[in-house]
This record gives sequence, structure tokens and C-alpha cells, in this order.
Amino acid sequence: MRLRIDLAYDGAGFHGWARQPGLRTVQGSLEDALATVLRVPTVEVTVAGRTDTGVHARGQVAHVDVAELPARRARSRNSTGQDAELDLLRRLNGVLEPDVRVRRLSEAPAGFDARFSAVWRRYAYRVADRPDAVDPLARGHVLSWPRPLDLEAMNRAAGRLLGEHDFASFCKRREGATTIRTLLDLSWERGVDGLLVATVRADAFCHHMVRSLVGCLLAVGEGRRTPDWAAQVLAAEQRDPAVTVVHAHGLTLEEVCYPAEQELAAQAERARVLRTSPVNDG
Amino acid sequence: MRLRIDLAYDGAGFHGWARQPGLRTVQGSLEDALATVLRVPTVEVTVAGRTDTGVHARGQVAHVDVAELPARRARSRNSTGQDAELDLLRRLNGVLEPDVRVRRLSEAPAGFDARFSAVWRRYAYRVADRPDAVDPLARGHVLSWPRPLDLEAMNRAAGRLLGEHDFASFCKRREGATTIRTLLDLSWERGVDGLLVATVRADAFCHHMVRSLVGCLLAVGEGRRTPDWAAQVLAAEQRDPAVTVVHAHGLTLEEVCYPAEQELAAQAERARVLRTSPVNDG
Repeated sequence: MRLRIDLAYDGAGFHGWARQPGLRTVQGSLEDALATVLRVPTVEVTVAGRTDTGVHARGQVAHVDVAELPARRARSRNSTGQDAELDLLRRLNGVLEPDVRVRRLSEAPAGFDARFSAVWRRYAYRVADRPDAVDPLARGHVLSWPRPLDLEAMNRAAGRLLGEHDFASFCKRREGATTIRTLLDLSWERGVDGLLVATVRADAFCHHMVRSLVGCLLAVGEGRRTPDWAAQVLAAEQRDPAVTVVHAHGLTLEEVCYPAEQELAAQAERARVLRTSPVNDG
Repeated sequence: MRLRIDLAYDGAGFHGWARQPGLRTVQGSLEDALATVLRVPTVEVTVAGRTDTGVHARGQVAHVDVAELPARRARSRNSTGQDAELDLLRRLNGVLEPDVRVRRLSEAPAGFDARFSAVWRRYAYRVADRPDAVDPLARGHVLSWPRPLDLEAMNRAAGRLLGEHDFASFCKRREGATTIRTLLDLSWERGVDGLLVATVRADAFCHHMVRSLVGCLLAVGEGRRTPDWAAQVLAAEQRDPAVTVVHAHGLTLEEVCYPAEQELAAQAERARVLRTSPVNDG
């Protein structure tokens, strides 16, 4: 059976999602915890968003294939599948460190693949650009910016980037990987607490894409560049050294969207064909 | 002149507000930073809420009396008082560690006293009582509770405690200090993120009062006690060992309310008379 794992983590203590020998990673921690709790030698987890070092997640989704839930024994004693999943979730969180938490554990519907079924990924980038918006309790996931930013200018620039484009200008090039993406949302809002939050939503992201888009918009927000500049950078279709990749700690993967159950099976077939397409990693 | 200081801090790294020799405290850090920036040997700060070890603040208010703003020199070069205050704020935050931030600095209106002018103090206590509400990014200021809590039962119990009472049952006794307080708000809400937040607002609080009130309500929320129990504890007017003082890290001082400027002068006169009355410290 396939388990869907919804999880959240504070990226500060991890060398990103992807398992690397000798380094603490989210994938490594989760796979090790699953192996312990499921009493198997190893497990392999598939994820929606392979976040970089320092990037956080509230709405990360992964899946793992398991032979059988160990708590199924409990099920035969009149408990339900949900009890077994809740029991497994508790034991997993008991093994994991407090900077990573499994928030939900459920049997995945037929055809579900955490990576290939995802319709879009939504990230948030948080910036405090004035002293009264700085919250020491949130300093681990909000970028402090020393000068005020022009929200309207940033949103004008952002609007020009929406839609399907080759985002090569905002991506760390990888051999053989496409950089064509559909950017569904890119907009800034100022909350009642004064905090600036960028919502960035796309079918998928290439490497460094969110942080490069935000870096480009911050230059506009500061007035160092005009709102037109963002569209010019995009049109150039090559990395512009003037675009900064902003700090990882302001970035959080907030949500991954999947189709309704009845669509999943058909979509799984299409995904198998497209299996060479790259995934996002913020 | 008197400066009003609005500040926020992560209580995890401090032995509470009040200066203590050899220990890192918020008062000590702030006074030392002010002395450095104002180039004076010592300063003395007065605060609205003397928070305990581990308690956080987003809306803490303090005041300090200074001979003159050092940046007044700038003012004579055609800049304004606000520029001088913003300059001082920036230099203060440059000296302070990132777990304490000055969010606003302003010349206090006549009669303003951070401690004695305060009309009420508002605290929030945050609890995650189910796995999908646990956010690793907020783990420093949210209590994780292993069992689901009954919101309605807690609110029924809380409603019975509102108004002016002797809160001796919920206070760490201090020689000669009154424990009569007016509880203006005590209610729980569940946010869209599933988090339980208690709002606790009173004219002032005696020592351990917020954390004892929350501890009492959590026992009700768990079903270990009936909603009537809270009122019974209150009526006893003496410390009940069955009431737990919950962990400090879920508690945040969110707001201190002051009267409008025109009322301050008159109120300052009354406050001088009442100067023996104790202040809150969560």
C-alpha cells in the first residue's frame, strides 16, 4: 500500500530535502524514522518539492510504499485503518526531532504520486522591511530588509512574469532539464502586522527559481530597478548576474495541490510518460 | 524627555524581564544597549509587563528618561525629531541581539508611564493539540499538547472567571501584594490552522496568573475536570495544587493599552497615589 505523508519542517537544521551521505537532511531523517517504525532495513520516500538547504515547509507532501502497516495487527482487534495511521504518525513523531513533524498520514488514493500527481506548488517568501514588522519569534523564517520596499512596484513587475515562459533567467541551469514553467501566481501582500509576503505558485519550479524571482522583485521594490526590468530579465532567457538569489530562510513551501481522486488514475498514466520532467526545488 | 519604547522578544534566551546580576535578561540587555547608544554610564527602564523566564513579547512597552536624544544634533541640520528617533532605533537594534527588537521609539506624551498608565495587558497562550496543527516553525512559542482539547468546555469554564475577583487561587503569593484583579477577557479560539489560542486580558496580572489560568482550563479541556471546577478554584481564594502552571514558552505578551493623550496627565496623578499597587508579570 502507498502512504501519503504530509509534513512540515524548520529548514534551519537541515542540508535541504535530498539525502546526502554524512549530512542531516529531511529525506534522510524521514526515511530513517520510517524504517525504524516500520521495522524494515530501508525505505524510499518520494517528495513533491525537493527544498534547498535552509528552506522551510509547512505543506510538504511525500509518499512511501509499504508492505503493510505494522499496526494492522491492531485493526484486527476492532480498531480502524485510521487508528493504525494515527498510531504510526505518533510513533514517527516520537522518533523524529521536533524540527520536523508529520502532520497527517493517510492511505494514498489509487494512482497517487507525491511528485508526479502534483498540479501546483505554492511557496511563500516573507520579508520585514520596517522595524515595526520585525518579530523576533518569526526571525527564523522571515527575511529582515533594512530599507522600505515599494509593494505596488513589485506587484507591477511580478504581473509581467505570469504565465508559461522559459524561466532560464531565474534558474540554476541543469544539464538536459527544461526551464519552461507556468507561473500561476506571483504577488505581494502586506499583512496587518506589516509583514510583506510573496505568494509564488507554479506547476513546478526549477532550481533557485523562487528565490531568484524574489531577488529580482526586491531590486524593483527598493527602486534600484524599474518594474520593466523583471520582464526584460525574463525575455533574455539567460541568467542575469544582477538578479540576486535571496536567502533561503525567508522561503517556505506552503502547499501542494493534487487532483481529485477520480482524476488521479488517468493522470498517473500521463505522468509515467512524462517521468523525465524535472521537479521543483524552490 | 521621556521615550516610549515598543519592543518584542523571543523569551527563550532570557531569564525573564527583570535585571538580575550575572544573568541575561531583557531589561539588562535593553538598558545596556541604551546606555551604549546614548553614551551614558547607566539608564533605568520602566516596563508594562515584567515577563517571567521564557515568556515572549510582541507588544511590550517600556519607557526611559533621557536628557536629550544624541541625534538631536541631526535635528539642527534640518532633520526632524522622527528622524532622530528612527536613527536611535536603528542604532539600538544594531547593538541588541536579534532575539530582542525595538519596533518603535517615540517621544512619550505628557504624563505617560509605561507601567502606571497601562489600562490593560493582553496575553496570548498558544496550544497545538493535534498533529496537523503542529508547526515546527512556531515550536518556540506554541505548547504541544498530546491529547485533543474541548474548546467549548474550556470556554464555559473561562466565562465563569471574568470580572473583578481575588485571584489568589491563581497567583504565586507575594508578601503585602493584592491579588484582586479585573479579568476582562479569557477565551479560546481555534484558528484556520487548527491552533488553539487563548486570549487573556486584564487590568494587570499577578505572578503566574496567566499560566495558572491556562493550566486550570487545560485540565477542563482534557476532561479531567468539569467546567465548574474553575469557578470553584477561584472561590476558594487559595492556591490549589491541582492547578498546573503551564510552560512559559506558549505565552506571549501581545499588547498593552494606554489611554488617549488628553487623559494621561490626569491619570498620571492618580497613578502616583496608587504607586504601591503591583504590576503584572504573566
